[in-house]
Amino acid sequence: MPTMASSDTTSSTVAAADRRLRATYRVRSAARDIEARAQAIALEQSIEAPLEAVMDRRILDEVVGRVHAITPIDDGVFDVSIDLATETVADDASQLMNVLFGNASLLDDVALVGVDLPSGIARTFGGPRFGIDGLRDLTGVRGRPLTCAALKPQGSTTEALASLARTFARAGIDVIKDDHALAHQAAAPFDERVPAVQRAVQATNAEFGTRCLYAPNVIGTYDAVRRQVDLARSLGVRIVLHAPMLNGASSLSALARNGEVAIVAHPALAGATRIAPPLLLGTLFRLFGADASIFPNAGGRFTFTQDACMGIADAARRPWLDLAPMLPVPAGGMSVERVPEMRERFGIDAMMLIGGSLLRARERLDERCRAFVAAVQSAGDFR
Amino acid sequence: MPTMASSDTTSSTVAAADRRLRATYRVRSAARDIEARAQAIALEQSIEAPLEAVMDRRILDEVVGRVHAITPIDDGVFDVSIDLATETVADDASQLMNVLFGNASLLDDVALVGVDLPSGIARTFGGPRFGIDGLRDLTGVRGRPLTCAALKPQGSTTEALASLARTFARAGIDVIKDDHALAHQAAAPFDERVPAVQRAVQATNAEFGTRCLYAPNVIGTYDAVRRQVDLARSLGVRIVLHAPMLNGASSLSALARNGEVAIVAHPALAGATRIAPPLLLGTLFRLFGADASIFPNAGGRFTFTQDACMGIADAARRPWLDLAPMLPVPAGGMSVERVPEMRERFGIDAMMLIGGSLLRARERLDERCRAFVAAVQSAGDFR
Repeated sequence: MPTMASSDTTSSTVAAADRRLRATYRVRSAARDIEARAQAIALEQSIEAPLEAVMDRRILDEVVGRVHAITPIDDGVFDVSIDLATETVADDASQLMNVLFGNASLLDDVALVGVDLPSGIARTFGGPRFGIDGLRDLTGVRGRPLTCAALKPQGSTTEALASLARTFARAGIDVIKDDHALAHQAAAPFDERVPAVQRAVQATNAEFGTRCLYAPNVIGTYDAVRRQVDLARSLGVRIVLHAPMLNGASSLSALARNGEVAIVAHPALAGATRIAPPLLLGTLFRLFGADASIFPNAGGRFTFTQDACMGIADAARRPWLDLAPMLPVPAGGMSVERVPEMRERFGIDAMMLIGGSLLRARERLDERCRAFVAAVQSAGDFR
Repeated sequence: MPTMASSDTTSSTVAAADRRLRATYRVRSAARDIEARAQAIALEQSIEAPLEAVMDRRILDEVVGRVHAITPIDDGVFDVSIDLATETVADDASQLMNVLFGNASLLDDVALVGVDLPSGIARTFGGPRFGIDGLRDLTGVRGRPLTCAALKPQGSTTEALASLARTFARAGIDVIKDDHALAHQAAAPFDERVPAVQRAVQATNAEFGTRCLYAPNVIGTYDAVRRQVDLARSLGVRIVLHAPMLNGASSLSALARNGEVAIVAHPALAGATRIAPPLLLGTLFRLFGADASIFPNAGGRFTFTQDACMGIADAARRPWLDLAPMLPVPAGGMSVERVPEMRERFGIDAMMLIGGSLLRARERLDERCRAFVAAVQSAGDFR
């Protein structure tokens, strides 16, 4: 409809370069089929209809996905780059996930491995509101990686978790996060746990002149997340843990836009294999506004490769328009012994998260935490 | 802490059988490692810490995941059943996803293939509020499958979509759903599209005495979803489309609890391979309250097997406590020609969704829609 198209702000005011984003899919396919497969994915992720069903010229010109390139990667494996219309994203983070991989996720021989976003989309979402500098301002930590420990196990009472937080804070840990499994369980409900832990951390900070932060886990609908953040904020909490694939990408994005608390993203339910980790846990979580992103470091309990982990760190910190860099948080089975290697690998702009391994020390937890802090603080050959 | 434990309603008032849910994971592993792998998953999905880190007896007894059985499935493939504490679910749908597969999703050799939920959890979430009977009441359709068509492609103007809806409604389609890609795009923003399409459908219903329903797509944070539902309700809309893996499982569950509109679940971003489709698109979406669930039927554009599709239909409709049955909606590349086979396969308690294939008829769309409706209505050998 010409009238509609000419009054369409998306097509009239957005620069041509901003009209398309480029998604790259890794596709297992016989060579003779790959062109047809690529065309099919371009349709699936744009109009979800056969081309001959489209009678509107503007849609054919501006909305239908276009295959940009097909690159052989390996025998029977191709990277297919497809240009998709940015107007289909409609400024919503969940909708961007939908545009990138909504239906294609249902094809078990297709993985989403890359995305080039126009600056308009990057600026619309805006990235981290605190970023690495903001987290350094909040914690007062300069010139070294941050340290992070986790309140666990779930099932613990509020009193036990507060006591654990006190031990962490006294040992000099910078950020204490809830285990991502802590929700509103009866053993330590949010409304009871968060005030108690925050009080314990604040009292320790007051006593020792430290600036330890407590990051409670927020989960549920965005209404629920906002109620949890509001309560936490009223207690002086400045940072929260949020799992975007559990809560929805829109929830992360809205919380970042709100801008009241820094956000540590957790990879729960983020899968390992169908969206490349550097893209999901690096680029996309940063785009939507996470200030730090936890990922399972190679050599721990999970199956991410070293390359994937470095890719996440790179996506988190590389210059990207005016988006603040995001703090990479290697985790998932790390230990004090691995700190030098992690420091070497990730440099100073990172946060080292050690969870269960610290707790294994039981009665000697305090000593173990202090060893963790000392290992991170000791001078090293930082990149 | 004994005081806490004894005042813990979860452990004191919940029947023993309700204290554990059983999740089953399919694990690729050498036979010699499978016991250790099973134990590791049991810890990962419960306390996310080594056993020796736990000093609280209650947690060891009641919260730590327990390996129930390890069953060889194939060479190097095992099904591992793990009993997880229901208290960890804390009545939240996103948290249930977290408990079932949060961290385990990061293990690329582990898939979630089954879950046995205690009746307490099933009743807490409550399942479909409308269910198959409710959808039959809303549409007035008895004794045959329902028909469904989709408003697409995205990029179309509101006027074009309303005109398409009019054609569908006049042809006798029962449910007209938005394409799952329709969000708040400038070409047809929600606030403009939904009133226009709903008016078109209502006018056609008034003219022909039909009861066609329009199901607009809701997307974004739960706040945004509620605003969209409120606007739609004010216009007389009774049913919406919701993609739980984009919006978050908590969003689906909250919308169902709210109970104002029937819900058609869409599988966008639901992946194909790491959570078994009958579990995710069948059992879990039903549990959280979807009244109908769209899935890519075998033989269409996607890679779900016939078994997976029948498994979804079975999970949707099987007797399950007092949870209403959910309507299975085979889709994803279906055509009028396939209606007899789909009718034969899924019986009358299903909704047949044909999308792009109808639009391919272009100027003969009306005729094609009427052929679809006739094919579904014609007497057949229903199971």
